[in-house]
Amino acid sequence: MAPTEQGTPVVDIHTHMYPPEYISILSLRDTIPLVRTFPSSPEPRLILLEAELPALERALQDPSAPLPGRPLTNHFTSLAHKLAFMFHHNISISVLSLANPWLDFLSPTEAGPIASQINTLFEAMCATTNNTTTHLAQQPPTSRKLFFFGTLPLTAPPSTILSAITHLTTLPHCRGIILGTSGLGSGLDDASLLPIFSALASAHLPIFLHPHYGLPPSVFGPHSEQGAYGHVLPLALGFPMETTIAIARMYLAGVFNAVPELRLILAHAGGTLPFLAGRIESCVLHDLKLGGGGGDTEMGRRRRTVWEVLREQVYLDAVVYSEVGVRAAVEAAGGADRLMFGTDHPFFPPVEGDMEGEWESVRLNVTAIETALGKGNQEAQMVLGGNAVRVLRLVEE
Amino acid sequence: MAPTEQGTPVVDIHTHMYPPEYISILSLRDTIPLVRTFPSSPEPRLILLEAELPALERALQDPSAPLPGRPLTNHFTSLAHKLAFMFHHNISISVLSLANPWLDFLSPTEAGPIASQINTLFEAMCATTNNTTTHLAQQPPTSRKLFFFGTLPLTAPPSTILSAITHLTTLPHCRGIILGTSGLGSGLDDASLLPIFSALASAHLPIFLHPHYGLPPSVFGPHSEQGAYGHVLPLALGFPMETTIAIARMYLAGVFNAVPELRLILAHAGGTLPFLAGRIESCVLHDLKLGGGGGDTEMGRRRRTVWEVLREQVYLDAVVYSEVGVRAAVEAAGGADRLMFGTDHPFFPPVEGDMEGEWESVRLNVTAIETALGKGNQEAQMVLGGNAVRVLRLVEE
Repeated sequence: MAPTEQGTPVVDIHTHMYPPEYISILSLRDTIPLVRTFPSSPEPRLILLEAELPALERALQDPSAPLPGRPLTNHFTSLAHKLAFMFHHNISISVLSLANPWLDFLSPTEAGPIASQINTLFEAMCATTNNTTTHLAQQPPTSRKLFFFGTLPLTAPPSTILSAITHLTTLPHCRGIILGTSGLGSGLDDASLLPIFSALASAHLPIFLHPHYGLPPSVFGPHSEQGAYGHVLPLALGFPMETTIAIARMYLAGVFNAVPELRLILAHAGGTLPFLAGRIESCVLHDLKLGGGGGDTEMGRRRRTVWEVLREQVYLDAVVYSEVGVRAAVEAAGGADRLMFGTDHPFFPPVEGDMEGEWESVRLNVTAIETALGKGNQEAQMVLGGNAVRVLRLVEE
Repeated sequence: MAPTEQGTPVVDIHTHMYPPEYISILSLRDTIPLVRTFPSSPEPRLILLEAELPALERALQDPSAPLPGRPLTNHFTSLAHKLAFMFHHNISISVLSLANPWLDFLSPTEAGPIASQINTLFEAMCATTNNTTTHLAQQPPTSRKLFFFGTLPLTAPPSTILSAITHLTTLPHCRGIILGTSGLGSGLDDASLLPIFSALASAHLPIFLHPHYGLPPSVFGPHSEQGAYGHVLPLALGFPMETTIAIARMYLAGVFNAVPELRLILAHAGGTLPFLAGRIESCVLHDLKLGGGGGDTEMGRRRRTVWEVLREQVYLDAVVYSEVGVRAAVEAAGGADRLMFGTDHPFFPPVEGDMEGEWESVRLNVTAIETALGKGNQEAQMVLGGNAVRVLRLVEE
């Protein structure tokens, strides 16, 4: 696998960081999300999911118990490791984003200042990197470019959120925002979000929609709650289902009609949207309450189909780990021009072996794209990088 | 649309009935599921979803309020209407099943006898129909064939459930069982189900796995709970997500290894399994708890990939309402020989217009198959009927 062989830049639009300043905030917390250190672990551990709480409690009581959560390796916190990861995977440009749970847990008064601090920090990481040639041990010098998706202080008053958007427009390397599915606390079909969506649309800042809250652990059953299946069910199913529900709620609430210039990039190839779009469309058409497609409601009078919204206002990342998924995403999006490669780094590191080598999780996604669209073909190159450069304007101004 | 044009029989493997005897049981209940009659409605109404409770309460207090649930038209209860529906859609063979929630709500003592009664009733419907030429008004006489999936008394003691399986093997038109995702009450990864799965495998009775319980209404947000989006979210998303979670739990619990002869047919093209199979596989590979694929556990030592299970033990219906979905299902299943047409009749009737004409919901699924696989092509014909005849042995013995 050598994606740059073809001469097109490879762009990673789904790649996260937790800057040290953010880790400090998480270390002071008593509820999920939080960071804890343990005598037996060289690295602090990030506890992100409700499902990880029992393991945390066991580990705090019993030093020999397995450690909860994930180790915050340098891959999570260090810019040098991000650049080395890019080098090892032939990624020329990365669009960084703060990882979940972003700033969703902050108090209304602290959210604004911390958002400003974090966004400024991301801008500085991009600016510094883009003016520097990186020297890695035993490798030829190379240059890597960074851009970023900003983070909004969603727990702050509306005026603070709007100010944060204005702030982002002054940061030269900001290319959108990353957003969870809870919005202001009650989901993305909340009408209070419309001014924020409008401001983002006016500022040409697309939303990178990313899951975090998953589904209630009980839906995965007692064995999963007792940890028998690790985190497979919440991560493999809960995350993409959460994204799908969030986007369907936006669709049904008429958000795409209300803010026609709004653009979204959906994490994990839309969750399950490409596969379920037909069923959503059919259920709308057959719902008595919606009068067969919306009826005499705002939605009904000017309803566009799910397919139209997918092809006009939505982009998908290509983090779907299968040829079947890539092809379905491309077909649902109406072409290969709306899908963009991502790695989900630093999540899904190799379970065994070299953290500084090639990651299996990356290889799976590159292979899926190249198998589905043809290695070296123009469509594969578009998905691996060309689309991101065009859609996100990844040239320095 | 005239699926029989090509000369292959069209087979509907996803088609439900509520016999009048079953409606009587539901009419006596005070909790979901239940049937109620209202002065303003000619037909009794079936209240199936928790989300429908507020509307039921409103309708019971206010005669002018919209009616809850769905009308139990003759399409739900009458064999004549099933046969007429088959005629109008050129369906030669239907594999009937009791619709959700089956017998899951019965007491342990009543479940056994009622299962026996219902299964005997379905057998009689098939036997009578298959010996009769149907005469429809103003149409040439025609013959339609029926088979059925039986229903198990899952709330009864294990020995009663095993006896019910033995009973099904004596019914000449039974070709499997329909099963919800709750199993004996705690999901399909419950080890207590293994003797039942083994008995079904030995009897060559595949499981038609069908959703009913959905996801907790809160995941769809306050607007959905207040009914703003009709039933779109629980039906379009909750149902397929429930199926996906159920099958993933079975996979992670090692059920497919433990009972290698077990065969499943997944409703709604696997829910979202074809799209998420790659992500499930990657999450298993990257899970520390599972040691990168199962580790030193029963699962790890002899783990087969999700793809292998999909291609060896699982069939999918083609009720997915889109070309994208059909193609993804075929690719995930490793070929068009594991996908089987269904209608979901009598659900998703035309919102307006003629109940006795062509149904849009059926047309969507036929068109999806013909567009994805090529109208008249052998693969489309296999999905429309050939596979079902082969897999379910739909010839009278």
